This record gives sequence, C-alpha cells and structure tokens, in this order.
Amino acid sequence: MQSFLILNGPNLNLLGQRQPEVYGRTTLEDIRDMCADHAKSCGVEVEFAQSNHEGVMIDMIHQAKAVHDGIILNAGAYTHTSVALQDAIASVEVPTIELHLSNIHARETFRHHSYISPVAVGLICGFGANGYRLAIDALCGWLEEHA
Amino acid sequence: MQSFLILNGPNLNLLGQRQPEVYGRTTLEDIRDMCADHAKSCGVEVEFAQSNHEGVMIDMIHQAKAVHDGIILNAGAYTHTSVALQDAIASVEVPTIELHLSNIHARETFRHHSYISPVAVGLICGFGANGYRLAIDALCGWLEEHA
Amino acid sequence: MQSFLILNGPNLNLLGQRQPEVYGRTTLEDIRDMCADHAKSCGVEVEFAQSNHEGVMIDMIHQAKAVHDGIILNAGAYTHTSVALQDAIASVEVPTIELHLSNIHARETFRHHSYISPVAVGLICGFGANGYRLAIDALCGWLEEHA
Amino acid sequence: MQSFLILNGPNLNLLGQRQPEVYGRTTLEDIRDMCADHAKSCGVEVEFAQSNHEGVMIDMIHQAKAVHDGIILNAGAYTHTSVALQDAIASVEVPTIELHLSNIHARETFRHHSYISPVAVGLICGFGANGYRLAIDALCGWLEEHA
Amino acid sequence: MQSFLILNGPNLNLLGQRQPEVYGRTTLEDIRDMCADHAKSCGVEVEFAQSNHEGVMIDMIHQAKAVHDGIILNAGAYTHTSVALQDAIASVEVPTIELHLSNIHARETFRHHSYISPVAVGLICGFGANGYRLAIDALCGWLEEHA
Amino acid sequence: MQSFLILNGPNLNLLGQRQPEVYGRTTLEDIRDMCADHAKSCGVEVEFAQSNHEGVMIDMIHQAKAVHDGIILNAGAYTHTSVALQDAIASVEVPTIELHLSNIHARETFRHHSYISPVAVGLICGFGANGYRLAIDALCGWLEEHA
Amino acid sequence: MQSFLILNGPNLNLLGQRQPEVYGRTTLEDIRDMCADHAKSCGVEVEFAQSNHEGVMIDMIHQAKAVHDGIILNAGAYTHTSVALQDAIASVEVPTIELHLSNIHARETFRHHSYISPVAVGLICGFGANGYRLAIDALCGWLEEHA
Amino acid sequence: MQSFLILNGPNLNLLGQRQPEVYGRTTLEDIRDMCADHAKSCGVEVEFAQSNHEGVMIDMIHQAKAVHDGIILNAGAYTHTSVALQDAIASVEVPTIELHLSNIHARETFRHHSYISPVAVGLICGFGANGYRLAIDALCGWLEEHA
Amino acid sequence: MQSFLILNGPNLNLLGQRQPEVYGRTTLEDIRDMCADHAKSCGVEVEFAQSNHEGVMIDMIHQAKAVHDGIILNAGAYTHTSVALQDAIASVEVPTIELHLSNIHARETFRHHSYISPVAVGLICGFGANGYRLAIDALCGWLEEHA
Amino acid sequence: MQSFLILNGPNLNLLGQRQPEVYGRTTLEDIRDMCADHAKSCGVEVEFAQSNHEGVMIDMIHQAKAVHDGIILNAGAYTHTSVALQDAIASVEVPTIELHLSNIHARETFRHHSYISPVAVGLICGFGANGYRLAIDALCGWLEEHA
Amino acid sequence: MQSFLILNGPNLNLLGQRQPEVYGRTTLEDIRDMCADHAKSCGVEVEFAQSNHEGVMIDMIHQAKAVHDGIILNAGAYTHTSVALQDAIASVEVPTIELHLSNIHARETFRHHSYISPVAVGLICGFGANGYRLAIDALCGWLEEHA
Amino acid sequence: MQSFLILNGPNLNLLGQRQPEVYGRTTLEDIRDMCADHAKSCGVEVEFAQSNHEGVMIDMIHQAKAVHDGIILNAGAYTHTSVALQDAIASVEVPTIELHLSNIHARETFRHHSYISPVAVGLICGFGANGYRLAIDALCGWLEEHA
Repeated sequence: MQSFLILNGPNLNLLGQRQPEVYGRTTLEDIRDMCADHAKSCGVEVEFAQSNHEGVMIDMIHQAKAVHDGIILNAGAYTHTSVALQDAIASVEVPTIELHLSNIHARETFRHHSYISPVAVGLICGFGANGYRLAIDALCGWLEEHA
Repeated sequence: MQSFLILNGPNLNLLGQRQPEVYGRTTLEDIRDMCADHAKSCGVEVEFAQSNHEGVMIDMIHQAKAVHDGIILNAGAYTHTSVALQDAIASVEVPTIELHLSNIHARETFRHHSYISPVAVGLICGFGANGYRLAIDALCGWLEEHA
Repeated sequence: MQSFLILNGPNLNLLGQRQPEVYGRTTLEDIRDMCADHAKSCGVEVEFAQSNHEGVMIDMIHQAKAVHDGIILNAGAYTHTSVALQDAIASVEVPTIELHLSNIHARETFRHHSYISPVAVGLICGFGANGYRLAIDALCGWLEEHA
Repeated sequence: MQSFLILNGPNLNLLGQRQPEVYGRTTLEDIRDMCADHAKSCGVEVEFAQSNHEGVMIDMIHQAKAVHDGIILNAGAYTHTSVALQDAIASVEVPTIELHLSNIHARETFRHHSYISPVAVGLICGFGANGYRLAIDALCGWLEEHA
Repeated sequence: MQSFLILNGPNLNLLGQRQPEVYGRTTLEDIRDMCADHAKSCGVEVEFAQSNHEGVMIDMIHQAKAVHDGIILNAGAYTHTSVALQDAIASVEVPTIELHLSNIHARETFRHHSYISPVAVGLICGFGANGYRLAIDALCGWLEEHA
Repeated sequence: MQSFLILNGPNLNLLGQRQPEVYGRTTLEDIRDMCADHAKSCGVEVEFAQSNHEGVMIDMIHQAKAVHDGIILNAGAYTHTSVALQDAIASVEVPTIELHLSNIHARETFRHHSYISPVAVGLICGFGANGYRLAIDALCGWLEEHA
Repeated sequence: MQSFLILNGPNLNLLGQRQPEVYGRTTLEDIRDMCADHAKSCGVEVEFAQSNHEGVMIDMIHQAKAVHDGIILNAGAYTHTSVALQDAIASVEVPTIELHLSNIHARETFRHHSYISPVAVGLICGFGANGYRLAIDALCGWLEEHA
Repeated sequence: MQSFLILNGPNLNLLGQRQPEVYGRTTLEDIRDMCADHAKSCGVEVEFAQSNHEGVMIDMIHQAKAVHDGIILNAGAYTHTSVALQDAIASVEVPTIELHLSNIHARETFRHHSYISPVAVGLICGFGANGYRLAIDALCGWLEEHA
Repeated sequence: MQSFLILNGPNLNLLGQRQPEVYGRTTLEDIRDMCADHAKSCGVEVEFAQSNHEGVMIDMIHQAKAVHDGIILNAGAYTHTSVALQDAIASVEVPTIELHLSNIHARETFRHHSYISPVAVGLICGFGANGYRLAIDALCGWLEEHA
Repeated sequence: MQSFLILNGPNLNLLGQRQPEVYGRTTLEDIRDMCADHAKSCGVEVEFAQSNHEGVMIDMIHQAKAVHDGIILNAGAYTHTSVALQDAIASVEVPTIELHLSNIHARETFRHHSYISPVAVGLICGFGANGYRLAIDALCGWLEEHA
Repeated sequence: MQSFLILNGPNLNLLGQRQPEVYGRTTLEDIRDMCADHAKSCGVEVEFAQSNHEGVMIDMIHQAKAVHDGIILNAGAYTHTSVALQDAIASVEVPTIELHLSNIHARETFRHHSYISPVAVGLICGFGANGYRLAIDALCGWLEEHA
Repeated sequence: MQSFLILNGPNLNLLGQRQPEVYGRTTLEDIRDMCADHAKSCGVEVEFAQSNHEGVMIDMIHQAKAVHDGIILNAGAYTHTSVALQDAIASVEVPTIELHLSNIHARETFRHHSYISPVAVGLICGFGANGYRLAIDALCGWLEEHA
C-alpha cells in the first residue's frame, strides 16, 4: 500500500478563519478528513501535517524519504522565499507535487515566483480544498506511470 | 448536461512527435479520446479543438460563451505572449482552467510568465496527458461549488 | 472624397458585452453607425472593420495603402505585443491614429507600452465610443494641415 | 454655462520659438485665441493659463475645484516627474484631460511615463495645436455623458 | 524654550476634502490647532506651515537653521521626487523627522521610495493626524537624548 | 483593560552588545521594563517576547488573536525576507504596528523593503528604544479612534 | 535532390516599397527568382513562401517536416515576439537558418532579441537580398557536413 | 562685449556652511566675486544668480535668450530630477555649460544621471569654486570656435 | 587552546546521499571526524554542529560568542536568503569564514548572492570536504595574524 | 585586386583543441588555408591574423584602413566586452563583417550582446569554419553592390 | 617644476580622421603641441602619450607615480569597461583628471558610465581639443589648493 | 613532480604600496618567496608571474597547458570584465583555482561578479597573502582526488 505525505506550511492552520474571501471557509481539519477519505478510496495512506517552522518542514521532508512514496506540498509563504525547501526536495528524491489553494500566479507579483516549482513534478493551484483531491489523483497517476 | 471546450494551442498537433523527452509519446488524438471517455464518465460533453492560429483560438473562445459551461485551455506558447487571449477569456466570462503538459515553471524563464493565469480559475501543469483528466475533474468540481 | 480605414483588433467584436465597467455598453455596431454618420458630416468615407487575427489586420493595413487616406487603428491587445503591426504601419506610410476606448496608461503596467505609438501620428484614449468621433476629426485636421 | 481650465506647464510659453520641428510654429497666444473661439462655439467658457512653476500649477488646480467643470492639462515636462500634480488632480476630483502637442509615446523613453495618466479621464497627444480643439470636444462629450 | 518647524508639502492644504478614505476628514487647520495644544503641553513652540512650492519649502528649511531646534516634515508628494529637499535637510543640519499621514510603504510602489529618509532622524507614518502628536513627542525625546 | 503583544525578532536579544553605534547601549531587558512602566501609565497590559525563530514568531502572532488587542512588531531581519510573517499578520487581523530601532530606510538598500509594511497600521523607525514608547501611544491612539 | 523551404514572415511582401533606406529596392519576387536560380545551380529545389499570419507560418513549418531537408526562415517581426515559432522549429527538427535582410543587432533594442536564434543552426543578417544566396550556401554546407 | 548668465540652483546659497567636506568653505558670494573678476579679465560680462525654485530657474533661462551669449548652469539637485530644465535649455538654444562643484559621478548613484547633460555643450565637475573659472574659459573658447 | 564552531546549515545532514554528482559521497559524519583529526593536529578544538532550522543556527552563533575563537559557517541554502544570519554574525563579532562544498558562483544565479559574504573574513568554496580542512587552516592563520 | 583582413581574436589560436563539441576540430591553420583557397577563387587577397591582445587587434584594424577593402572580424570574447573595438571599426570606416563560429545568440546570455554588431555591415554565425567562406562571399557581394 | 602625464587611450591616434562630426578635425599631434605650449605658459612640463593597449596604459600610470605630479586621462573607450584602470589610478594615488573630447553623457547610454570617475578628482568633457587646456589649468589649480 | 602556474593580474605588482588597508603591506615578491617555500614543502614546483596585460595573461594560460598541472589565478580587476580569460581557462582544461586577496563579495557590487568562477574548480578569497598558501594546498588536494 502506497503512502503519501501531505505537508502544509505556515498559516495554513488558520484556514477557514484567515481571509475567507481568498481561501474559503473550509478548515485544515476538514481537508485532512477529506484527504483521508479520498486517499482510502484510492488505496493509499496519507500522513497529514502542518507546521509554521521552515526547519520542521525540512526535517519532515527528510524523514519522508524512508516512509513515503510521494509528497504533496502546500508550502504556503515559504514557496516564495525558501531555497532550503527546494534543496530538501531535491535531496530526498521523492516525487513532490506543488499545491496551492489560491491561484498564486493571479495574485501579487511576489507570489508568482516559486522555489518549489523547479523541483516539483507538477503544480496544481486555484481549486481551494478540492485541489488536495486532485493532487492525490495526480500523484497516484504519476506513480502508476513511473512504476 | 454540461459541456466543456478543451482548446489546444500552437504545436500541440505534433504531440507524440515533438520533443518526447519533454512532452511524452501520447498523441493529441490519444488525449482527445481519453478526454471523451473521461468526460462521459463524469456526465459532461466535450468539444476538443486545436489551432496554431491565435486569432482562431480567440474566435473559439468567443463562441464558447453561448455553448460551453467551462473551458480547459492549453494555450501552448501563446500562454507567454498573448494579451489578446487574456482579454478573450476575461470578455466571455466562462470559467477557464489553464493547463500545460509540462511544468512551465520548471523550464526556461520566459515560460514562467503566463498571460492566462490572471484570468484563470486555476492552473494544472506538469502531469502530461493525465493533466487533462485532472482538469476535467477540477472544472466539474468548480462548477458544482459555484452552481 | 477622402477615405479612412477604421480598423479594430481582437475582442472588440464583443464590445457592449465585455467588461462594461471598463468599456461601456455601446456595441461595435453602434460605433460603426456613429462613425458612418460622423464621417459623412465631415465629408469622408469610412471602411469599418474588425478582426481577431493579427495576420488579417496586417493584410488590411497593406491593402489600405492603395485605397485610404488615413487609418484609425484600435489594435486592442495587439497594441502591446505586435512588432508586426508596427512594421506594417511603417511600411505603408499611411497616416495612422492610435485609438483606445479605455485609458491604457491608467491600467495594468503591461498595457502602458504600445508598439503602435512610435509609428502613429497621435494617440487618443480614454473617451470610449466618443474617441472614434474625435479620431475622425483629428485625422481630418491632420490631413488638412499636411495637404 | 460650463467653464474649463486649460492649464499649460513649463516652457510652453516659448511655443512657436522652441524646437519648431517638434512643436510647430503656432504660439501659445494663437492657441489661446483658437481655444476661446472654439469654446464659444461649443457654449463653454475657458480660462487659459501657463506657468513654469510646479507649485503655481498645483495652486491653480486647487482653485479650479470651485470654479471649473473640467481641466485640460498640458503639463509639459512635469508630466514625467510630478507626483504632486497627480495628487493635486486626484484631490480636486475635477475631470481632467491630459494633452500633449507631440506624441510623447513616440519620443525619448523618459517621456513615455506620465504621472498624469493614472488620474486623467483620457489622453490626447500628437496633434499639435489642433489637440486643444479635440480636448475641448472630448471634455464636452465626457461631461454630457456623465451629466 | 525649544521651537519646532512643522512643514507640510503639496496638497496637504486640501486635507479633509481630499480622498478622505485615505487621509481622513481632519483638516490641516485642525491639525495645526492640535499641534499647538500638544506642543504647549510639552513645553515647545511650533511654527506650522504649508506650501505647494518645492522652492518655498527649501527656503523655509534654510530659514529654520537659525530659528528652530528641529523639523517635522510631511513633504507629501515631494518625498518621492525631490533630491533638492534631501540636500536642504542635509545642509541645515537641523534634526528632521519624516512624517506621513498614510502608510506610504503600503501604497503604490512609487511611494515606497523616499528621498527624505536617508537624511531624517526617523520616520512615522500611517497614524493620520495623530502622527503629528507622536512626531512632536519623538522630536522632544530625540533632543533630550542628544542634549 | 487592553493588552498588547510586543514581539521582537532575530538578534534583538543581543541588544546593547550588538553594533551599539547603530542600535545604542540599551538592552532588551531595559526596553521590556520601560514598556511595562509606560504601558501601565497608559492603562494597558503588555506581553513582551523575543525569538530568533521565524516559526515561533508566527505561532505567537496566531496566539495573539485570542488574547491581545494589538501587536507591536519589531521583526528585525525577518522584516525583509518573511512573506510568512506578512501572511500571519493578515490572517489574525489584529492591528499591528511595525517598529524598528534604526531608520531602515536610511540603511543598506536590502533593508528598504519590508514585507510587514503592507499589512501594518503604521510604521515607526529610527527612534531607538524610545520608539517602543511611541508605538504604545500610537496603538492606544489607533484603538481609541477605531473603538 | 534536396529541397529547402524559404519562409518569409510579415510585411516582407511589401519589400521594395517599404522603407527602402533600410531594406533596399529589390522586391520579394526578385528574391524568389534569384533563389530559384541560385538553388538550381546548387542542385537543390526551393519552395518559396510568405505570410503575414503567425499561424500560417507555424502550419508551413510543420508541413516542412515531411517534405524539406532544411528551412531558411526570415521571420520578420515575429522573430522578436513568437515563442510559438521557436517551438514549431524545435518540434519539427528540420535544420533551420535564421535570416534577416537588415542587421537586426544594429537596430532598435527590441529587435536585438530573437526567439528563433536558440533553435537555429546559424544566423545571417545585414546582407539584404544577397543574404538569401548566402543562406542557401550555408544550408547546403551544413547538410553536407551532417550527411 | 559678451555676456554670460551664471545660474545656480537649490541649496547653493548655503555654500560654505553646507557639508564643507564635500563642497568646501568658499561662499557663493566669494564665487560671485571671483567670477566677476575672472570674467572682466576675459572681457565678458556676467549675471550671477541663484534660486531654490525650479520655476524661477526656468524663467531665468528663458530670459537669457535675449540677453546672454551663453549660460553656465550649476543646477544642483535639479540636475537629477528636472526634465523641465532640460526642455528650457533646449528651447532657448543658448550654449550651456553644465557645472558642478563636486564630482557627481563619484557620489551616490542617483547623482550619476543628469537631465542637463544631453542638452549641454559640455560638463565640468569636481573642481570646487575653481570650476566656475574653468567654465568661463570653456564658454569663451566655445563661442570663439563657433563664432 | 583555541576553539572553533563549525556550523552546517539545512540539508547538509543528507550529505553523501544528496545529489552526489554535486556534493560527493562523503557524509557529514566523515567530515566531522576529518575536522576533529585536522583540528587536533593544528592544536585547536572544534564543536561541529548541523541544523535545518535558521533560528537554531542564530542561537548557536550567539552562544559562540562566549565560547569560540572563530566560526566556520556552511550556511547551505540560508546563505542566499537569510539577512538574520548576516545580522547574527555582525552582532557577535567572532571572525567567521564562509564555506561551501560546491562552487556556488558557478551554479544557478540565485546561488551567486550571499548574505554571509559581507560579514565574513573570507570565503572558500568548491573544494568539497577538503574545504573544511582549508577553512581550519585559514582561520588559524587569520587568528595568528590578528593575535 | 581587392584585399581583405581576416582578423581573429582571443583563444581562436587554440581552435581544434578547445571545446570541440562547440567549435569543431578544424584548426585555425586549416581555416587560414581554406580562406586563402577560397579567396583566390574569388579573385581577392587575404591577410589572415590572430591575436589574444585587444590592443594589437585595434592596431591591426587601424592599419587595415590604408591596405584593405574590407574586414572579416571574429573578435571572439572581445565581441561582448570591447567598446574600443567598436570605436576602432567606426573610426577606420572599412566595411566590416562580424563572424562567429558558434551561434552566439543561442549560447549564454552574456554572449548575446555584441559591441561589434552596431558598426558591422552584417553578421554570420553558427556555421563553424564554413562561416569564413560565407563571409568572404558576403564581403565580395557587399563591395560589388557598393562599388 | 611640476610635471603632468597626459595619457590618451584607444583610437585617439586617429583623431582628425575619425568621425570628425563627433571629434573635430584637430589631430592628436596638434593637441600635443597645444598642450606643450599651454603647459610651458603655466610653468609645467608634460609627457604626452597614447596607446591602444589597456595594459600599456596601466603600466604608464604605474610609472607616473615616481615621475609626475598629476595625470590627465582621456581613457577613450576603456573609460566604460576597464576596472583595471580604475584600480591603477587608485593604486598610484596621483591626482587624476578625467577628460573626454565629446560630452559622453550626451551620447549612447553605454558611454554614460565611467569606471574612471569614482577615482578622478574631476571631469571635463565636451569641449574638444580645448578641454586639454582646461584640464591643465584645472590640474594646476587643484595642486595649488592641495599644496 | 607537479608544477603550478601562479598568475597574477593587473596592479598586483604594486602590492604593498597600493591601498594597504585593503590589501596589506606584503609585496608580491614576498608572496612569490612564500609560495616557493610552501610549494617546495608540498613537493611541487611553481612558476610565479604577473602582468597588467589581458593578452599576456591569455598567452600564459595557453602555454600552461603543456607545462603545468594546475593554475592559481588572481586575475585582479580582469576577474570582473574578461570573458576572454574565462574562455582561455575553458580552452586549456587545466584545473584552475580562483584567488583574491580581499573578499570581493564584501566590496563594491561590480566586484561581486566574476567571469572566472564559472570555469574555476573553486574560489578562495579574503585571506590576504595567506590565501596563496591555501590555494596551493587546495590544488594539491584537488589533484590528489582527481589523480
């Protein structure tokens, strides 16, 4: 049975409370449950995590190497500033999908650049909570093709 | 029954022949068939089109207004150069998903900027032919949420 | 009797339907009729055209050389991206007035640059449909001064 | 009876003497008379002024608020450097038309940026002295539409 | 008894009338009175002035040298364009506090650069009329520390 | 009774030891005591904290939402690099004042840009330890006006 | 017998009429004849085409794959704006020589960048009509070396 | 007998008091006297003026046209910001020498750009008060050569 | 006996596993042992540490002040993004050598800028594990010269 | 009989040894012989030279004025950095063809800019040793047309 | 008796022949003679030299240290590209005046930047051959003031 | 026995005299002797050279190919401007270490870019004369690893 790490970055713990006109009213707990359900129906296991600490996120990506078949990474604001996360993904060589709730390329210019993109398999953004479901499907598809 | 326009831009007719290390060996016909199957299983109709002409693509987006509930747009190279396509999408006000076979944000710098993104609901890229299936799902999900 | 080509670029066929808060509710047909009336009162003939195709617009500018005394060009989005239209105008050496419905210099930064301006006699923008009337007057005035 | 302020910026007092190959041989006095005539025929009153002092121009725009229905502003070189004029226009909320004798967007790069444009109703440039007549017409038209 | 010059730049005379959603409804007269009261309670004298003329502002800064112990400068739009004001402050060597009603670093990009900052003791912005009170306190504190 | 969080970022624990020609000889403990005294005299409570960890600072901002009426944030070096702190402040919607000991706009260019400014009520910088007192006053004033 | 496509882009149909001080007085028909003669003497066949339509040019490059051994491409103004033409050439993998009548690197800055260069075998520019002869020789030479 | 206008810009009235490590201890009065002496010995008359007002400087340049054979312009800080002064010099077509006390090209980057240079005969900077003497010589030489 | 802190940043714990074509197959443990041996032979003590957390690295640099005579800092990806590390080094005033395994100035452009360089004694990069030995020698040499 | 200078810049003496995947295995001696042969067949004389010294190259271009009818210049790396070579060519007014073995516009960005192009008749690049033959033909053609 | 080195850079040997509309018809020999005369009248000795070789110019500046009291440097095109000349001047600490025949700040943008300016006492440009006389005077004046 | 070329660029002959606060008081002769001693103790031979001529440096690098096992290159100011030196190193394929006395990445911005770095094995800078010893060790180590 395959296993995915779904890793969420800074401020995503506030989901549902934070700027709902941008991010919607669904909470991160709702998304975790939705992911668990959807993963089960796809026959995969998910570990679902969130941290506001760049260092903790790097540690978790490192640990994923031995445990997970793929990573779904919503790195939040660190997407735009963290070379260290880029290096972490490149180091562990676990296929990683970049995910954002909002369409970052339709927002402020400084959100158009992603340090994650150059090392990610692909990118899904703008679909809110539903993006997580799409990312699980995308990762399953990618692993099937590269099995 | 809902109907989607899946519109493909310049050079996508060569899919399968063109730089297969970047775009894979699947042809556009394979993708059309795959889309038809997947759409049917989702209960939607799709019109699948390709053109190398920016003007023709604008015309088709205009015509979509009266006929389709959503657009899946793989604008190819026009993504990076066409203000006119941005205006066309903004004009028709049909929800549009931006799609790319490859991860444009992991390629040459001039492919990182998209004129489509600011007017698209969301963006899916890097998943090859499978991206079309994900885009159909994403559009169905979006329409359900905004019904 | 003098004759003018009034050439409209991409998406202007949707005028009246498209983002009316930016472009107003007047349709391109309304403008065509208004131009015909105003031109008649000025003693000039107008050919009024629209195309979403850059190539077609270039062809029409070429053909204008033999037929028209001046061009009023609302190149829409191609204003910002088409070196080919600049070259076309420079090639035919027919006096050309650049026209925009909205004040492009008060909108997004990428709309501040015009490839048409360096080869245009002058520029009128921000006056909506009325700008066409002003452009006809301006072209008549220019031709009178350069007769 | 409507009243317009036609305000001219630095060096425009030299019109007719200064670089006639760019600005023509008409003097500012000629233009003042032409404006008076044309305004009368349109049923509006005009105050025609010129100053080389940015501060004086700001003062006059402030005073226009109580007296004039619209402003036609040829800010000359201050167009490209004066945030203060932009703020003055934004402050008084009198509809303002930006006017230039030459086509500033066809000249040196530093003349392509205008601090006036973002707060102007519209822009007319490149038509020499005749541009003043067009601007009066444009302002009349705009006021009629927004009456 | 210490004496401060509170110098206000272009368009601040319109305060209360101008874009109240940005600058509030307090007039410059209200602020002058508030400053007089607050200064008295701090045991300092204030000269309160406003001009739309860059040259007049420079003259006043020069004159401050002999008369005032400190300057509170709300240079308005000249903040972003006036090297001459920077040089004036550097020349007189009177401690100067930069003040803005709105948070200029949260507005348009061209308002993020200040020619005043490199020669100012410190900067207070975003607190509306109350900023003047804070600036008086800040200047008193600074003079005390540097007595 | 109102309560404020005064949050200090990286390297501020070294205050008094670190580059005293830039930051003065007062220690962070001195400032904490000074803030406690001044707050008491204003009738507010303060929580005073410092961390070198971006993630810890984000956590504390999140926790402030339920506990504090306002935040005074001296984010130190993270001011210039942390999109995550910007998002944190935007998420909790607690009024936040940006504070710096030195005048960051008079230092190296890379210190002129602040990710905090676009989401802060206002900015105070350049007044050393005294800036904390001014920030408490400013926050009291802001809350009074928005009560 | 080898076969070459000589493809000419926008406005080249006006050759001889258009800005003769830049492009000379030779017409495109003259060049077509000269190419036919020169090709015959080299033992190659040429198809000589011109279009003002980017889409048509892409279509012709696609069709060249099955028919021609090499392409000589004078893309005119599309040289500087068309990512789609770059992709077309990369897709068909037919050796392509970039050709310009004028020395584009000695003209306006926006003509210094070419989207064709990164995918072209080599570049010949500045030799007017004679450049076509040189390009035929160059292509023959290249094919001989890579036979 | 030839006559020169020596026009000094903002803050130069403070010469001798202002940052003497950059500008020396000579006052503007000293320089005026030195210029009068030197001019006399060269057989020319000088009008020596200073203003902190950009508008006044423009007015004086305009008036120079009828009265003076050449201008020596130390525009101070307006050198770097005033398009209007550039236009004034271009308009009057009186030969103008750009002069600075300090070597502006060895100071802060924003002082490296001069709007005066493109319309000046030549530039002398970095020689302090002595530069005025050199400028008078240079202007005499220039007029002799162009007599 | 002198003591050095050798501090390693994010992802360096993966050394030997991570992109061996760039960083080689030596592990961080190998390097620690090699450093211990080499330091002993030089008569210095080393503390060898690694962290993926920027905040932890800042804390360790602060603690170095009281304990170590010099720092060898391989800040990994934080080199390019951390103003806070720059400030930390500047604050503790312990001589610091910047070290990288790979030649960062020969890699991607975003790795060419270092926030560490402006506050480091010197820089050694491109020599893989051997660079640590060179850095120990360099630090010994520097301390000897500055004893 | 016409005479050409074929001047080769830095590192071209290593041709055949240096990066053969970029520049091929032909040596500069091979090229010299090839040029001699080809020139003879065209009825022209060639002087063939190489230097690694910018100054020597300038000297040779100066001497060409009296001796040669045209120059073929492969300036190697000096192409991108030498304003002095540009000035040398402009000074001697001998028609000069810019030549490169590789397609410099398809290589690193810093090789896209040429100081030679603005003063060269035309440019030939990307055809390896064969480019020399083409350049001789091009120069003959150019001289014929301008005879 | 004082002694000056007057050092002229690349292409200045062609003076009088080269682009006379920019540089005039005076030859370098004329200037050498004029300098000798003028220097004699000022009581100084001059060494007058020219080289097209950057290295030779550096060598001569080094040798000037022991022999000359000042340098007048017309570095020609090396002005814009040679960090090595800047370092040479900084190294020898002989007062150096930067000289250009033409007004480099009124020509192409790439001629606006000078590596000489930051280490030069002052700059004289735009006065043709007469500039040498002015530079000798300026250097005499500077040495007198700094004696 | 291995042999190294230690090649020093422009102005390094002045070492000890030139800006000693930046480069120290050691002369190049001292360094040559120190290198000879250190090399002997490492069992390698060194050729030690200096030139102010870019062309001479290129020649010496070319000659190194047949004679030396490695190069230590302190290219001085040519580091920042010489593409030709980059090409020379790339051409000879002798392992090269980039060396600077000062920490170039802590100095003026134009010294942060190195054309040498992309083709160098590694970089050592900021350690003054001692850097030469470190570079010899580094080169020995590198050759040992790549033997």
